[in-house]
Amino acid sequence: MSDAVEVVDLRAARTALRENAPLVHCLTNTVVQTLTANALLAVGAAPAMVDAPQEAGDFAAVASAVLINVGTVHERTAEAMRLAARSAGAAGTPWVLDPVAVGPLAYRTALAGELVGLAPAVVRGNASEVMALAGAGAGGRGVDSTAGADDAGSAAAGLAARTGGVVAVSGEVDLITDGTRTVRVGGGSALLTRTTGAGCALGALVAAYVAATGDPLAGAVAAHAHVALAAERAAATAAGPGTFAAAWLDALDAVGPDDLARADVRPA
Amino acid sequence: MSDAVEVVDLRAARTALRENAPLVHCLTNTVVQTLTANALLAVGAAPAMVDAPQEAGDFAAVASAVLINVGTVHERTAEAMRLAARSAGAAGTPWVLDPVAVGPLAYRTALAGELVGLAPAVVRGNASEVMALAGAGAGGRGVDSTAGADDAGSAAAGLAARTGGVVAVSGEVDLITDGTRTVRVGGGSALLTRTTGAGCALGALVAAYVAATGDPLAGAVAAHAHVALAAERAAATAAGPGTFAAAWLDALDAVGPDDLARADVRPA
Amino acid sequence: MSDAVEVVDLRAARTALRENAPLVHCLTNTVVQTLTANALLAVGAAPAMVDAPQEAGDFAAVASAVLINVGTVHERTAEAMRLAARSAGAAGTPWVLDPVAVGPLAYRTALAGELVGLAPAVVRGNASEVMALAGAGAGGRGVDSTAGADDAGSAAAGLAARTGGVVAVSGEVDLITDGTRTVRVGGGSALLTRTTGAGCALGALVAAYVAATGDPLAGAVAAHAHVALAAERAAATAAGPGTFAAAWLDALDAVGPDDLARADVRPA
Repeated sequence: MSDAVEVVDLRAARTALRENAPLVHCLTNTVVQTLTANALLAVGAAPAMVDAPQEAGDFAAVASAVLINVGTVHERTAEAMRLAARSAGAAGTPWVLDPVAVGPLAYRTALAGELVGLAPAVVRGNASEVMALAGAGAGGRGVDSTAGADDAGSAAAGLAARTGGVVAVSGEVDLITDGTRTVRVGGGSALLTRTTGAGCALGALVAAYVAATGDPLAGAVAAHAHVALAAERAAATAAGPGTFAAAWLDALDAVGPDDLARADVRPA
Repeated sequence: MSDAVEVVDLRAARTALRENAPLVHCLTNTVVQTLTANALLAVGAAPAMVDAPQEAGDFAAVASAVLINVGTVHERTAEAMRLAARSAGAAGTPWVLDPVAVGPLAYRTALAGELVGLAPAVVRGNASEVMALAGAGAGGRGVDSTAGADDAGSAAAGLAARTGGVVAVSGEVDLITDGTRTVRVGGGSALLTRTTGAGCALGALVAAYVAATGDPLAGAVAAHAHVALAAERAAATAAGPGTFAAAWLDALDAVGPDDLARADVRPA
Repeated sequence: MSDAVEVVDLRAARTALRENAPLVHCLTNTVVQTLTANALLAVGAAPAMVDAPQEAGDFAAVASAVLINVGTVHERTAEAMRLAARSAGAAGTPWVLDPVAVGPLAYRTALAGELVGLAPAVVRGNASEVMALAGAGAGGRGVDSTAGADDAGSAAAGLAARTGGVVAVSGEVDLITDGTRTVRVGGGSALLTRTTGAGCALGALVAAYVAATGDPLAGAVAAHAHVALAAERAAATAAGPGTFAAAWLDALDAVGPDDLARADVRPA
């Protein structure tokens, strides 16, 4: 625990997020836009969903951070994503890539391969997605992962070395690495996997925390810890997956610096 | 009741759905994607929303079932729907057509007419939509139906004969027919009609149950019974239409094989 | 209070909305479609989201009212918006313009400038958006407003004079003007600003009330009062921003004519 605290100051991260209220520009899939925006609002960040090619580049340059999630990508939004990623890179704005269902689907896999070359500060996905993106091959069936986070450990480290950023693999225990240091985040709830968009919203919270802390590893860890802790609290009161989603947003709001400091975060 | 049990083994259907966890590929409208995905997760299925023309055909071939809902269709998604329907047909994957607002709107009416020629396993709509699709003429005003399910009985039977599949007409009492056998499903709650996307989510559950049971009639009946039963439970605890939606998802999760076997399902 | 009652008969407006159940054609952003549809259903109106260029014009002509919200606009939906606005104008159908994030983003600002020339019955936005649309210049950062409703008072009056309609500026106290008469609506809850789409849903309720009352000023005031009152009730029971959203929909449903007549509405 003391080692984890050395790696990531969770209390400071939560405080910074509340104080900075970062504006997160989300180019994300249409299934999860609402939950993503509400999750950002709940933690104290500000969401903006702008995915027209005419606007995405300009907006990425003024946002605090950018999220690119390829969940329902198509030609227009792919173009907007390219423009946003390039603009964020040019402006020094951190951006997060969520390679939803990359692997089995050729179109988005090619796009994600192109985007990952533009140096995302963080790549966040499940084990199958990260392994596919790392070129390690994997067998996913869409948004589910058939591999655990640990299986993706070396793929994640290799990918982080390639991007110069951080790679976060969601699973029962999350694994987050910058290629050198690796941190695990435990806790959470199985109900997260039964709430559509919870993982995608996590990607947006990673972007918010990276903007607030200025540190991709600390930001990614803090976001995962925050989501896991809020899920535990929500699971304790929810009657099922429907009431869980609302309780999770309530808990995202309620988790403060002292709460976050007690999250299950440890060096790998 | 004993006749209904002969037609549809609801207990077996619910068990099969939980065991098979079918992957349902949804090409559906953007208003209801979130609720649709959450309803599928709640019953134990897996959703995937893939509606780019570059991906829809490939994905339909590997999914357990496909849902095509024309609620907010436009040029790109219409093309993806055509590709998905053809690919599903070629792969022997069952698919469901939900002809939202077909009748008063020429563009989607022509598209739905084209799609219905590609042999959907199930067509699910309200009475106005089914009558319009059957060419019987009808007066809807968008997503509402001005006719009851029973008015659409002969149109539904005729349409089923034409597609070689099943036609399900939602109403106060649902009517489901394969052109020969007809089943009614009662129960439910008026709050379902005040929750946007409940009918559209039902279409996705039909797809999931058809995949799990391998039987379009049994699958369609089980999905309607499951939705109605969960709605009754949710209505008993909800304070209004907002809390109803979350309670309905909780109830979709909670309804088990023994519960479903007691649903109000009867031969017509 | 007696003056306010002279300007707007809130009791009659609520009754008219319930009796007429207006069909509101929404061309709105994908983040808020679900909440917007559910809010319309909760108050007793009927939503329809039709945003294909092939359909938008035809549908606008038969709807009771139209909402155009540029939140996630792009080339296709911009074209649909133009067609819907022109068709509504030709048919005498009232329509509402919500200029989300207009000001900092050139593409949508040009579009909104074009649309505002087509005589919307009501323009509804925050202070930054209204000031930008009025050409007064403003500094917003996306969907947030950095100015208060009162700062936008003269811009709103000028814009109303230009459109011949009503302009509503959302803020801690809302300001609604037809260029001659100005009404303020108080109440509400800070949780509204932490619920994505609450302001956008308000735009749809304005459209519904304008259709039901036949009066843009009375309709806009009634919608703002209804939203504020429901928010106060929801805030009293919600445990956080997640449970607030569902409670707000419940309260939108529950607010009746006598409740609305007691809302905090006063002449400016």
